Amino acid sequence: MPVTPRTPPGVLELLPPQQLAFQRMLDTIRRGFERFGFVPVETPAFELTDVLLTKSGGETEKQVYFVESTGSLAKRAPGEGLPELALRFDLTVPLARYVAEHENQLAFPFRRYQIQRVYRGERNQKGRYREFYQCDIDVIGKDTLPLAYDAEVPAIIYRIFTELAFGAFTIYINHRKLLRSILVAHDIAPEQHAAVLHEIDRLGKQERSEIVARLKDVPKAEQLLELLTAPDALARLDPSLEGYAELKQVYEGTLALGVPASACKINLAIARGLDYYTGTVYETFLDEHPRLGSICSGGRYDNLAEHYTKSKLPGVGISIGATRLFAQLLDMKLIRDEASTQVIVLRADPQLASTYAELASELRQAWNVEVYGADDKLGKQLKYANRARIPLAIIYGQPEAAKGLVKVKDLRVTDVNVPNESEVARGELMAKVRELLGHAEAPR
Amino acid sequence: MPVTPRTPPGVLELLPPQQLAFQRMLDTIRRGFERFGFVPVETPAFELTDVLLTKSGGETEKQVYFVESTGSLAKRAPGEGLPELALRFDLTVPLARYVAEHENQLAFPFRRYQIQRVYRGERNQKGRYREFYQCDIDVIGKDTLPLAYDAEVPAIIYRIFTELAFGAFTIYINHRKLLRSILVAHDIAPEQHAAVLHEIDRLGKQERSEIVARLKDVPKAEQLLELLTAPDALARLDPSLEGYAELKQVYEGTLALGVPASACKINLAIARGLDYYTGTVYETFLDEHPRLGSICSGGRYDNLAEHYTKSKLPGVGISIGATRLFAQLLDMKLIRDEASTQVIVLRADPQLASTYAELASELRQAWNVEVYGADDKLGKQLKYANRARIPLAIIYGQPEAAKGLVKVKDLRVTDVNVPNESEVARGELMAKVRELLGHAEAPR
Repeated sequence: MPVTPRTPPGVLELLPPQQLAFQRMLDTIRRGFERFGFVPVETPAFELTDVLLTKSGGETEKQVYFVESTGSLAKRAPGEGLPELALRFDLTVPLARYVAEHENQLAFPFRRYQIQRVYRGERNQKGRYREFYQCDIDVIGKDTLPLAYDAEVPAIIYRIFTELAFGAFTIYINHRKLLRSILVAHDIAPEQHAAVLHEIDRLGKQERSEIVARLKDVPKAEQLLELLTAPDALARLDPSLEGYAELKQVYEGTLALGVPASACKINLAIARGLDYYTGTVYETFLDEHPRLGSICSGGRYDNLAEHYTKSKLPGVGISIGATRLFAQLLDMKLIRDEASTQVIVLRADPQLASTYAELASELRQAWNVEVYGADDKLGKQLKYANRARIPLAIIYGQPEAAKGLVKVKDLRVTDVNVPNESEVARGELMAKVRELLGHAEAPR
Repeated sequence: MPVTPRTPPGVLELLPPQQLAFQRMLDTIRRGFERFGFVPVETPAFELTDVLLTKSGGETEKQVYFVESTGSLAKRAPGEGLPELALRFDLTVPLARYVAEHENQLAFPFRRYQIQRVYRGERNQKGRYREFYQCDIDVIGKDTLPLAYDAEVPAIIYRIFTELAFGAFTIYINHRKLLRSILVAHDIAPEQHAAVLHEIDRLGKQERSEIVARLKDVPKAEQLLELLTAPDALARLDPSLEGYAELKQVYEGTLALGVPASACKINLAIARGLDYYTGTVYETFLDEHPRLGSICSGGRYDNLAEHYTKSKLPGVGISIGATRLFAQLLDMKLIRDEASTQVIVLRADPQLASTYAELASELRQAWNVEVYGADDKLGKQLKYANRARIPLAIIYGQPEAAKGLVKVKDLRVTDVNVPNESEVARGELMAKVRELLGHAEAPR
């Protein structure tokens, strides 16, 4: 009796045409990061538990996946400490550990990107992933990090999401210190700040009346919300408020980098839940799909690795939650299936197998090429090529050999009234394929 | 008191210049796989334990890493069953699960590649990794899979290792059925086959006398070893032996695909430990570094997914253990550090920051470009650029602005007698950088 083959809940496993589309997305993000001078880091999926959980409270720990082998499993009684290893739940803690560990070998400001999966023991529900990709960049300074680096971040986001072509998007920026100053100016007590920021984060996602209702004990809550969401909010603020000048400088710096004002806006209602952020904060929304929430977020923090080193390491960074974003776009049918194989050489006649090898070898100078290997009828071979979504098939059997020609069949043509076959001299094959595939050469 | 930042034993964590070199290696492998028409699959790092351990005995289970969150940890008494999730220990079991699960949506022969990390609870010793990359390809047929696919495998290995340029290499091929027939012809009892194959696998790695000593109870062991390692071994065999004709057909097919006979040889002493293989087997050695062992191995198997489906799914595949190979080449100083950032625009004068943004934007049409963001002295900026191994620095301060020129400094030039600066008109900058960097444009 076979075991039912199935994946655990909470993971995204794709069929090849979607996996290719996802890979192209990750490649585009990676290329964008490298274009701006970021260098790659990969860290192990698991860290030592005492290193990983250094700064976390009980809430984080509940989501952490621990790792152990049978030897260790057999020995440990329940409740008796934690296993030695744990899977990373984000890329920030591993970055802190990495920078502190290799501090003397890195060049600061250290510009790293990291595109890897992270793991969380989430409850099983739609949209909650237990394994998902994060694509992070951070610039880490030693002692100080100028605001020019904050201004660059939206330029990177702008380039990448323009190239990804998921439609119009807006990058919102704000400043945590300015937001705090505004709360103070509204007579909101420091002990209420966290709760109020949490509610501000919900603006646009929930009904405003619900938010106001939950803030009934907060003085001037309605006034505050009105100000934060007003189109002329910035003009109404006192420019001497802490954070105001910094936010303005970052925003103007971003525009100077060529980011259009239509794609990057100051938005005082962006709070970013985490206490972690201390300056500039970023969120990014697809204009047509606000319900997806922020697809790229981050901010400035004062000290990355205080648990691992005495060095002061301020930084600024963003993260793209690639798995969640891709899954949502897939759900909305906004992802086009992709194929990496561009040409298939069919086995029209087993006697001519060595010619097929030569044709494939020639075509592989520019394209991804498969040679069909079984002595099946041509119809079955074409059916396979269609299922595998390969655009062009090369047919060279005895009839073609007699004429000294090669047949190229365009499998993308589905209209029976449109001719989809052409015969060319062997010396013309490369040119013909190039004509049909356009400039879609495979990467070298 | 800070926690000491450190990785667990048994993982390979790299600094950015080596990470880049490693990434280029994986990219080359990926491109090679795609060139031959393989499509990507990624599976989750963890599988359901009952699915993963279906076919494994106790030995595999000892190496498996199990995954659980605190909730589950607290509940399970020691020895009371296994956690629900486990990390994959290879890419073959997940492939079997994947193909069986998605069978109706795949095109057969299914050509997949998979480049991901796998996890093993190894004892802590040098060269043993608990986390390492495997780069696998497999072609999976439904019911049958012609030998043409076996013949193609060495052509793929050949292309990839030629491009990787780690030096001369040889792909050895053999056939498990032929090897069994030879054992039978030497009157070796079936129950001794596994042990004898295991010793054959050690040929070339250990002294032959030690191997012979361990085979003292096996009749004709010395004769057998002499035959298997003889240069004219194939000519001395009876061509009617099972597997002989297949091996010959595969080998001739490989040569017909343009693989030179100097890089691909039949070697009857290649056994591949695993019982799993039933036909062609492959191993690959770097000619100058035989001690590394096989750097790319695999073979033909009869039925991939018998534990998950009643369909018969024969296949052929290979695996490159990229982490181990890279670490060994690194140890031997055969890996060159790499940089992805090609140009840095220095902040020679804060007043000119918007010009730096424009220069960077222009250069990013072709290269990976960083803009220095802090108002540091030029000497400190250049020191950073050198540490980050960026080849070219652009300097544009008041003196250059007055002349209407841009200064390009080649940081790769270390000989003080060789001029390493040139000044060009702004319109000539792209051409100058192209001249200095050659055709090393960053990938689009």
